[in-house]
Amino acid sequence: MPQTSFIIRTGGAGLYEFTEEVTQWAAAVGAQEGLCTLFLRHTSASLLIQENADPDVRRDLDAYFARLVPRADTPEMDYLTHRCEGPDDMPAHIKAALLPVSLSIPVVQGRLGLGTWQGIHLFEHRDAPHRREVLAHIGG
Amino acid sequence: MPQTSFIIRTGGAGLYEFTEEVTQWAAAVGAQEGLCTLFLRHTSASLLIQENADPDVRRDLDAYFARLVPRADTPEMDYLTHRCEGPDDMPAHIKAALLPVSLSIPVVQGRLGLGTWQGIHLFEHRDAPHRREVLAHIGG
Amino acid sequence: MPQTSFIIRTGGAGLYEFTEEVTQWAAAVGAQEGLCTLFLRHTSASLLIQENADPDVRRDLDAYFARLVPRADTPEMDYLTHRCEGPDDMPAHIKAALLPVSLSIPVVQGRLGLGTWQGIHLFEHRDAPHRREVLAHIGG
Repeated sequence: MPQTSFIIRTGGAGLYEFTEEVTQWAAAVGAQEGLCTLFLRHTSASLLIQENADPDVRRDLDAYFARLVPRADTPEMDYLTHRCEGPDDMPAHIKAALLPVSLSIPVVQGRLGLGTWQGIHLFEHRDAPHRREVLAHIGG
Repeated sequence: MPQTSFIIRTGGAGLYEFTEEVTQWAAAVGAQEGLCTLFLRHTSASLLIQENADPDVRRDLDAYFARLVPRADTPEMDYLTHRCEGPDDMPAHIKAALLPVSLSIPVVQGRLGLGTWQGIHLFEHRDAPHRREVLAHIGG
Repeated sequence: MPQTSFIIRTGGAGLYEFTEEVTQWAAAVGAQEGLCTLFLRHTSASLLIQENADPDVRRDLDAYFARLVPRADTPEMDYLTHRCEGPDDMPAHIKAALLPVSLSIPVVQGRLGLGTWQGIHLFEHRDAPHRREVLAHIGG
């Protein structure tokens, strides 16, 4: 049961792709069939599988979620009480609730079973730079 | 580690149940205890476990998500930039980010551990007919 | 492949933490490395990993989701058709679609790989008291 962890350094909110790192690790592990699970050890960022071909898709996803969960210093969010860590903090927890913390991808014939357009991303929800840790596990 | 894939042909946005196909495959595999994982290989559809008893629930889910993520040709979505594939395309990516791409269900005493009202659905977000592939894996 | 189920008795909508129960079970199982999967057998509640340090975070999550999916007896939800089980029922199904039904957490060196601030919660979406069942599976 091979395990590792990936460290992703973020510099502000947005999507950071790390498909290549996961793909290379899965190849090095050498499992022909199995299940690769990723788990993010944080409550203000997310994991997301989304299109990696057109950067416009990532920009639009960012823009949508910024509107769905506005910052704490906007009038529509005046009901929030957890404000001690800045106007981006509680919205980051809300986005981290809405989007996945764990993902499982079958390994088929020695390769991750991602579709043609699927890329694995860390979705950072905080403004300040962060060091994010993703646990990875390949099991039977 | 048995694996298979399910093909679901869709004819427009909405929920397509395939619980029966997964249940039958899990029974054929014959595992008494295990973990069944489903993984969707697309970025404009989702997997969803939801009530399968009352068709009104499915209709209301459709209606809610259509309002939560309006089409790209509506005024509230005028900020979207990825528009080349039609007004249903970027909203489909957003819904595919909001809803699951992978699901894991324990197999208990030879059966999928679904609750009484839980059905497994593919949630199609595009208008045009699509052929969707779901990888399935049963592990220990 | 150890399995168990956790019963969580709820008394109204909100977050109910059960990290301790899962942690103790995983320790009792004694796996050094593995994957712990939780699966909720209901369509009107969710599983959620979120911050367990500050109760304000839980209160704000509640408040956000109550606004994102208003009750069926409010004007903005007048399009809902599934109304037979009360004004909290269809919104509960919608929240249960938006938030996870399954979660997978690697077991690393004999312990659940949760981050410092991560707690495992059942998110109840119904008003009335409910008995909720979560299947748990630790695999290789």
